[in-house]
Amino acid sequence: MREDPQDAEIISHKLMLRGGFIRKLTAGTYSYLPLGFKALSKVRDIITEEMVREGAQEVLLPALQPIELWKKTGRDEELADVMIKFKDRHGKIMCLGPTHEEVITSLVAGNISSYRSLPVTLFQIQTKFRDEIRPRFGIIRSCEFIMKDAYSFDADEKGLEKNYKKMYEAYCRIFKRCGLPYKVVGADPGFMGGGQSHEFIVPAKGGEDIELGHTFKLGVKYSKTLGATYLDKSGTSREIVMGCYGIGVNRILAAAIEVSHDKDGIIWPRSIAPYEIAILPLNVGNERLKKFSEELYGKMSGAGLDVILDDRPERAGVKFKDADLIGFPIQVIIGEKNLEKGKVELKTRKTKKSELVDKSEIIIRLLPG
Amino acid sequence: MREDPQDAEIISHKLMLRGGFIRKLTAGTYSYLPLGFKALSKVRDIITEEMVREGAQEVLLPALQPIELWKKTGRDEELADVMIKFKDRHGKIMCLGPTHEEVITSLVAGNISSYRSLPVTLFQIQTKFRDEIRPRFGIIRSCEFIMKDAYSFDADEKGLEKNYKKMYEAYCRIFKRCGLPYKVVGADPGFMGGGQSHEFIVPAKGGEDIELGHTFKLGVKYSKTLGATYLDKSGTSREIVMGCYGIGVNRILAAAIEVSHDKDGIIWPRSIAPYEIAILPLNVGNERLKKFSEELYGKMSGAGLDVILDDRPERAGVKFKDADLIGFPIQVIIGEKNLEKGKVELKTRKTKKSELVDKSEIIIRLLPG
Repeated sequence: MREDPQDAEIISHKLMLRGGFIRKLTAGTYSYLPLGFKALSKVRDIITEEMVREGAQEVLLPALQPIELWKKTGRDEELADVMIKFKDRHGKIMCLGPTHEEVITSLVAGNISSYRSLPVTLFQIQTKFRDEIRPRFGIIRSCEFIMKDAYSFDADEKGLEKNYKKMYEAYCRIFKRCGLPYKVVGADPGFMGGGQSHEFIVPAKGGEDIELGHTFKLGVKYSKTLGATYLDKSGTSREIVMGCYGIGVNRILAAAIEVSHDKDGIIWPRSIAPYEIAILPLNVGNERLKKFSEELYGKMSGAGLDVILDDRPERAGVKFKDADLIGFPIQVIIGEKNLEKGKVELKTRKTKKSELVDKSEIIIRLLPG
Repeated sequence: MREDPQDAEIISHKLMLRGGFIRKLTAGTYSYLPLGFKALSKVRDIITEEMVREGAQEVLLPALQPIELWKKTGRDEELADVMIKFKDRHGKIMCLGPTHEEVITSLVAGNISSYRSLPVTLFQIQTKFRDEIRPRFGIIRSCEFIMKDAYSFDADEKGLEKNYKKMYEAYCRIFKRCGLPYKVVGADPGFMGGGQSHEFIVPAKGGEDIELGHTFKLGVKYSKTLGATYLDKSGTSREIVMGCYGIGVNRILAAAIEVSHDKDGIIWPRSIAPYEIAILPLNVGNERLKKFSEELYGKMSGAGLDVILDDRPERAGVKFKDADLIGFPIQVIIGEKNLEKGKVELKTRKTKKSELVDKSEIIIRLLPG
């Protein structure tokens, strides 16, 4: 599918379709194809690393939630428009979590009772659901999307302040590592309630700024309503002070494309490219060339390089076009004439500059550090 | 929560609750706490490795699916009892996928047209939903669960035979690596349709055998109905021949506990234990002991060992009980008297045998190989 998809309004959506990253199932729901999943899992790994670095522990909460829980905070009404609800076979009304403050707060309420268990920060990378009135922009505004949501639990405001700062810094590292020119703005906490809040935004060329992350000082809004209390040193019961911290995991892919592409396709940063290096044998009908390419692929993989081999029996022009469209940061081009001279071509996607490199030196050139 | 949970009928459910692996949100839905998520992610990694080893490519398909798609195969009626359905804000009937044959077949129908793109095997690790009439046995029969589902696409029966064998062998490796004494039985394909099918079962002591995996030769059942065809070498249109292969990811945790526990708790195999090694400093009030334990933890982590430090200010008896209950395969016990003599105690959870080891030798003893 190399044609321009008609219903795509923004460049990231177009390029993700054309490059074979995603496919639409129905309005607002997308399948991730192997290239899309690979890039997504790199983003996921970066986020997980930075959360764990700050001492956050990973959990996994249910998408299916009883509506009773939401009635306690009144958010069943506040979020009624976007919340997907259904009646189960026993007549119980359930919803699909558009967010998880209620679940995590009641979980912590049932499992933490003493100041000695605080502070704690929990996070998950999980699928959320929203009945969007107008799903659009591909995976940017969809009905099913992947969020990293973290929640901090502290004994007091001072503790929250400290944890909020840690998460803020983790967010800066995450967006930087994903190659995104982000900016941070103070924001209205909206339906989340609580105090201070910040949005992490990537300014997009088309004018449609992309909100990638949002941090909130929730205070005691949820712990009060859901009974998340602890006994302090003196044995007095107090409400746990909370913060929450979200990142739109799949939005990071779209944002990276919005800020880094050219007329030929995507220019991925190395950190979240589906593969860092693509080997392009220009004529797999030539046995010697084919064998060399396969051996090079084996050696590169063995050396820990993140590499894919385009061994399709396609014309050179098709391979060049596809590699540029998909956006592998580095192309290793294997042509007959060069190979006869013991050379391969090393091309950088971003600059489109290429140079001839001795075939025995290609791996050492590509190893990091 | 060290008490025996009242509504748990089987030992794995009881131990996962008591050991702090999972918590029930409502009937049939569970949260994974940090220990549970850690073990789950190890199972996920083993499965992914073995799928990739057989050349399968990872994708991610939507949970939200239009009911129209299911009407094409007639399975909207066959699965009506367990399928969760709702009407979205535009009046469209959507369901939550209890399985993904319809989605993947229509995806492949839209993206593969030539014999040159075959064979291909795709897999995902994803959350499925079922409106269970009687959720029970904890995460074994729940309304929301994690499946690995793989789908093979071949030009003919001979290709399917080959791919089926590869997946069968991958399944044997997966269950073996997870420490499970599985057996394979021929099975009725049931609502999946198609030809031959195998179940991978773990015989449980309580008589409640656990079905962990199921492989099916689907043939052309889905490709015929959903138009997944390809052009062969002569330009003739043919139906793609399919197989599908499922594993209950969270069931593996429950099965591992069913087959390996004692009166004190879980005995994890090293491969899927939440942590392989627990360091238990018996008195964190002793500064020297505390410092030694923290340094040992740092060195072990640095050496790539999978280790957790129980630095809670609890009594020795509580730490022993919890470590046995959670089931870390190896305990490194740091006591004052032993440490004065330059020794630490190395205890194996399974045998409960322990020995004194020179503190300078502990890491080298625990390194694999």
